[in-house]
Amino acid sequence: MKIGFLGFGTVAKRLTAILDDCTITTIDKGRSRKTKENIKSSNVETVNSFDDVDIIFSTTTPKESLNNAKKHGKNFKGIYIDLNNISPKTALKINNIIPNFVDASIIGHISNDFTLFLSGPNAHKLKFLNRYFPVKIISNNIGDASKLKILRSIYTKSLSAILIETIAIADKYNLREELLETLTITEGENFKESALSRVENTLNNNKRKSEELIEILDYFPDENLEMVRGALKKLSK
Amino acid sequence: MKIGFLGFGTVAKRLTAILDDCTITTIDKGRSRKTKENIKSSNVETVNSFDDVDIIFSTTTPKESLNNAKKHGKNFKGIYIDLNNISPKTALKINNIIPNFVDASIIGHISNDFTLFLSGPNAHKLKFLNRYFPVKIISNNIGDASKLKILRSIYTKSLSAILIETIAIADKYNLREELLETLTITEGENFKESALSRVENTLNNNKRKSEELIEILDYFPDENLEMVRGALKKLSK
Repeated sequence: MKIGFLGFGTVAKRLTAILDDCTITTIDKGRSRKTKENIKSSNVETVNSFDDVDIIFSTTTPKESLNNAKKHGKNFKGIYIDLNNISPKTALKINNIIPNFVDASIIGHISNDFTLFLSGPNAHKLKFLNRYFPVKIISNNIGDASKLKILRSIYTKSLSAILIETIAIADKYNLREELLETLTITEGENFKESALSRVENTLNNNKRKSEELIEILDYFPDENLEMVRGALKKLSK
Repeated sequence: MKIGFLGFGTVAKRLTAILDDCTITTIDKGRSRKTKENIKSSNVETVNSFDDVDIIFSTTTPKESLNNAKKHGKNFKGIYIDLNNISPKTALKINNIIPNFVDASIIGHISNDFTLFLSGPNAHKLKFLNRYFPVKIISNNIGDASKLKILRSIYTKSLSAILIETIAIADKYNLREELLETLTITEGENFKESALSRVENTLNNNKRKSEELIEILDYFPDENLEMVRGALKKLSK
């Protein structure tokens, strides 16, 4: 199997290591020094175009996604899969350009355990990836895989906001450790570590997290997302 | 050790079974038929007063708590402990009436695993209960044990509201199972079962849960509880 990576960051590097019996190529022209270092350390062949690969993985950024699809996917005969955390709207736009597009979301941690969720009429063609890591095909609808990621982040981002709210008030009454202990009893033994890491990550990326909450509200303008709205207020303080 | 139970519901019944080498008494005068059945099936001695017991456990309802303390605790020389989910304000009121009061919260499931959190200057006198079940002494402050329970419920009640919000929108897009699956990857294998049970429990007790959220907001009028406010809006729909 010949695979081409558009972009070569953490995701491409990790997938290259996992897809160990595939031939991997990438385009290094115009990429950053960091990307070129990744390519070199992964021992990947550099090419000028993806004409002879079976699958293109787009692993750049959500902003570059659509342009990359136009540039590299238009006349591509193989499977084109986008791993850039794009919105369902962008997925539909790309699908209008590319013949064999597959909508995808990586859930979990790319450097650790993850599952690749796929949707669209061509998703079944990527079933063989199950040899390398867990793959789930959701539906035949382009947009479902990227929608799933948004739904998931309604939960995870609101959860971080609750943790910030609860821990702040516990701190005020000098009961942080006791609170985390009472929650560990019912929420599981990893609760404390995971809670504090979520709070830290959210507070350190306050601005970006707020923007992502606004994106969720923009994407679902007609839903009653009181908790997402609450989370946005919390992070805007 | 002689222990008196004020009220004899699920909590008293379970503790009687656990405190198997203690002498347990209760007052059945004026109690409901259900309570009398509990007393009978637990093989507990009924008495007219608690004059000769070492510890009184109050296990009635938050509403009866203060009156019971006045009636049975005023001249009581032993340890008086209240397990009625009372507010920190009520705990302070009872402490003004009773000489050896201990503030307490049961965290977890009384019929399964639970920990008894205690606070107040007399809490150390109940350390011996560790022989029977986990006991944690938080501080010397009356009110801390009951405050801890409120802090905890800021988290748990808001969490239920997030689950309601997220699952409702996933249902709309026919992605409920997929959403629960993606969350299970990061939140642990019991996630689905626990999430659905929380949603069901909250929706079935919508009115009471809303009242409890209002109580939290009343108790902390000066805090930025955006998520609790969000949860109240969610449950008021």
